[in-house]
Amino acid sequence: MDKPTLPKGTRDFGPATMAKRQFILDNIRKVFQKYGFMPLETPAMENLTTLTGKYGEEGDQLLFKILNSGDYLKNADATKLETRNSKQLTFDISEKGLRYDLTVPFARYVVMNRNEVAFPFKRCQIQPVWRADRPQKGRYREFYQCDADVVGTDSLICEAEIILMIREVFKGLGITDYTIKINHRGILNGIAEAIGAAGNETPMFVAIDKLDKIGEEKVKEELREKNFSENALTKLFQLLNVKGSNTNKLAVLFKEFETIASGQKGLRDLRLVFDFLRDYGSDESNVELDVALARGLSYYTGCIFEVKINNVSIGSVSGGGRYDNLTKAFGDKENLSGVGFSFGVDRIYDAMEELNLFPKDAQVSSKVLICYFDDESFRYGLGVLSKLRQAGIASEIYPDLSKIKKQLDFANKKMIPFTIVIGSEEVSTGALAFKNMTNGEQQKLTIDQIIKQF
Amino acid sequence: MDKPTLPKGTRDFGPATMAKRQFILDNIRKVFQKYGFMPLETPAMENLTTLTGKYGEEGDQLLFKILNSGDYLKNADATKLETRNSKQLTFDISEKGLRYDLTVPFARYVVMNRNEVAFPFKRCQIQPVWRADRPQKGRYREFYQCDADVVGTDSLICEAEIILMIREVFKGLGITDYTIKINHRGILNGIAEAIGAAGNETPMFVAIDKLDKIGEEKVKEELREKNFSENALTKLFQLLNVKGSNTNKLAVLFKEFETIASGQKGLRDLRLVFDFLRDYGSDESNVELDVALARGLSYYTGCIFEVKINNVSIGSVSGGGRYDNLTKAFGDKENLSGVGFSFGVDRIYDAMEELNLFPKDAQVSSKVLICYFDDESFRYGLGVLSKLRQAGIASEIYPDLSKIKKQLDFANKKMIPFTIVIGSEEVSTGALAFKNMTNGEQQKLTIDQIIKQF
Repeated sequence: MDKPTLPKGTRDFGPATMAKRQFILDNIRKVFQKYGFMPLETPAMENLTTLTGKYGEEGDQLLFKILNSGDYLKNADATKLETRNSKQLTFDISEKGLRYDLTVPFARYVVMNRNEVAFPFKRCQIQPVWRADRPQKGRYREFYQCDADVVGTDSLICEAEIILMIREVFKGLGITDYTIKINHRGILNGIAEAIGAAGNETPMFVAIDKLDKIGEEKVKEELREKNFSENALTKLFQLLNVKGSNTNKLAVLFKEFETIASGQKGLRDLRLVFDFLRDYGSDESNVELDVALARGLSYYTGCIFEVKINNVSIGSVSGGGRYDNLTKAFGDKENLSGVGFSFGVDRIYDAMEELNLFPKDAQVSSKVLICYFDDESFRYGLGVLSKLRQAGIASEIYPDLSKIKKQLDFANKKMIPFTIVIGSEEVSTGALAFKNMTNGEQQKLTIDQIIKQF
Repeated sequence: MDKPTLPKGTRDFGPATMAKRQFILDNIRKVFQKYGFMPLETPAMENLTTLTGKYGEEGDQLLFKILNSGDYLKNADATKLETRNSKQLTFDISEKGLRYDLTVPFARYVVMNRNEVAFPFKRCQIQPVWRADRPQKGRYREFYQCDADVVGTDSLICEAEIILMIREVFKGLGITDYTIKINHRGILNGIAEAIGAAGNETPMFVAIDKLDKIGEEKVKEELREKNFSENALTKLFQLLNVKGSNTNKLAVLFKEFETIASGQKGLRDLRLVFDFLRDYGSDESNVELDVALARGLSYYTGCIFEVKINNVSIGSVSGGGRYDNLTKAFGDKENLSGVGFSFGVDRIYDAMEELNLFPKDAQVSSKVLICYFDDESFRYGLGVLSKLRQAGIASEIYPDLSKIKKQLDFANKKMIPFTIVIGSEEVSTGALAFKNMTNGEQQKLTIDQIIKQF
């Protein structure tokens, strides 16, 4: 029989990886809840009617679809079968799909529970999502998202708190060198108007979104092909290249947008977010107004965010923004304004590995392994083990009578930092050989003395 | 547009439910890790070659299968399509399925990682599983399993520790009235031999497994139909009805099994498990030798467990046992003995609701909501909020300027236990109105005094 394999693009998380992932997730969860976000979990499977049409045509194709149970071909359309029309047949033989993100299930939840939910509703959700994307380095078919959203208010306090939360999560993780880029849909619209490209926003946004990757000249080339004038391009890069502090950028842009309402609204919103930060006793550190930040524009309507950890080979690790039409896709008439953001756990994990930031004690192994020479000391060891656990110390006993060397090797392999070795002498005196597996030091101590060491 | 719905047999877990589920899961996770079990997570999707043939024919039909991506009909067999042979076509158009339990993925992991894993390997795994079962009360198509297994040792210390862990989890949850039923495959075989039914074990096990539900007379009827003699039935119920302490039952059965090796082995194993409990400084409380306990026999080879919470309308909430052939299904030649058990979170949840056992503070809402009269006090409130959070107190501010009544109603709806109400007087004096929302009491306190109250 062939050795079993994993489906393409999926991963097992063994103990060592789990400990580090848990460290990241616990940190995020703690901060979310400290800021009043309440946890939600939705099913892995959603009706395809819930999922399709929400992620564009490409997204629909990346949905994992679940085959109906039982005799699924019974009522399938004959023509579709005969012509082998995979695309059309799908809806005859499949009515469920796997969650593609956490936003659509959240919107579905809000619509279904409108009367029970207390608005403004702050929810956090930490669950895996699935996409039938072509797997490649850093891109998986199953990965976790960690979302926090507030719906039912357009207060900019939510934007300020997103900045505070990102900072607090990174502080907890030991990540110090990072940039929270912020921009506003209104500013982008204002720029389009200022350079005489109103009505032509989309190609402009698509091009400048690539500025980081392809550079100024290529962006200009692309826009020339879209019939942007040289004057417009000069003006565009004059605006995109405004340097200095956020305050300075705001001041320059306020002048440029003197007669442009949408641009002014964007600037006022950002200024208020920065003011709020000061009211919190904080400041703008790590926050950079980046007028070239565009991010999937069709979706967002106000502030947008993107977070990069500096000096690592990894793209953005978090992003989000304000949207106004979350529940409309489900026939909701009321306009629920919301703002949210998402942490990418896999990318944070990779960045922390690259920066060597995981604490040494991000381990989940036992702290102590009890080793023994014979059945009598084994039995005695069980009482010792009980006392350790009663003191809350994660510990275990080697389950089979084996050579001491084998038992100690096992402790090393499992990265258990301490061992207690028990023989007949230890049983009679109660002075136990307590060994530090890291530096090899050994002491004779009673169990009570050992417990005090922790 | 129709209101969206959830797929049959699946559930959302809103904030209130999540808090209680988290309380259960955190407890289980803590105990697992205290006993040296290391966390593992496997993908939701497995290859169908990994899953099929492991759960019997019925199980195979209950697997959720995932439709292949792209033009899945392209290479499908023409005859299968023409004859609408759903069963046969499945393997042409689907190569992945959703995890049905945590045991098979664990076995797959062990086989794939044989050289990296330190044996004996203690792993715990807490993840959802999916079964296309007909949904009914207490039975869902997506539900969590919490498994702990040790593989690579046949030491009975593992069985003793399972008992200790179940007790410690229940203690943490406040569940006091429960029974851990234990039996041994050897005892069941011994009984079959003792009543002259050797070779005829299966119908006997199937029948006595139902004793709880259908009673002695119906079991006898069923066995008469299978040609069990009256003598055999009399002897059978003489053995099943042995009363008294575990010690007494063991003594009676040792006499009965004087010449029956398999039965003696089972009794010796159980006696050793009980002895180990005493070595741990514990005893047999809550543990009941139940010789009628059979549990999915094909699978287990040694001790078997089942846990019931008494005086609730819910079946067993945990079960497990020893098995010898975990990895054989994946072509592994070495015989890895293992023992494991699983907690059913949904059933524990239902039982705890029925017994009203959830602590009042199994809430995840903020502890404090800051309310305010105007923009000035709102701005001032942000500084207050910062101080609360710096002290680790989960708290939030109402995001929109609204009537105080609306803000206080919001606190009540979200079950936030305290509010701080700020107006111009509070801003100028720093003496804040701190209100206990449960009893309505209000005090004027500084922010430092408020923090000290927590």
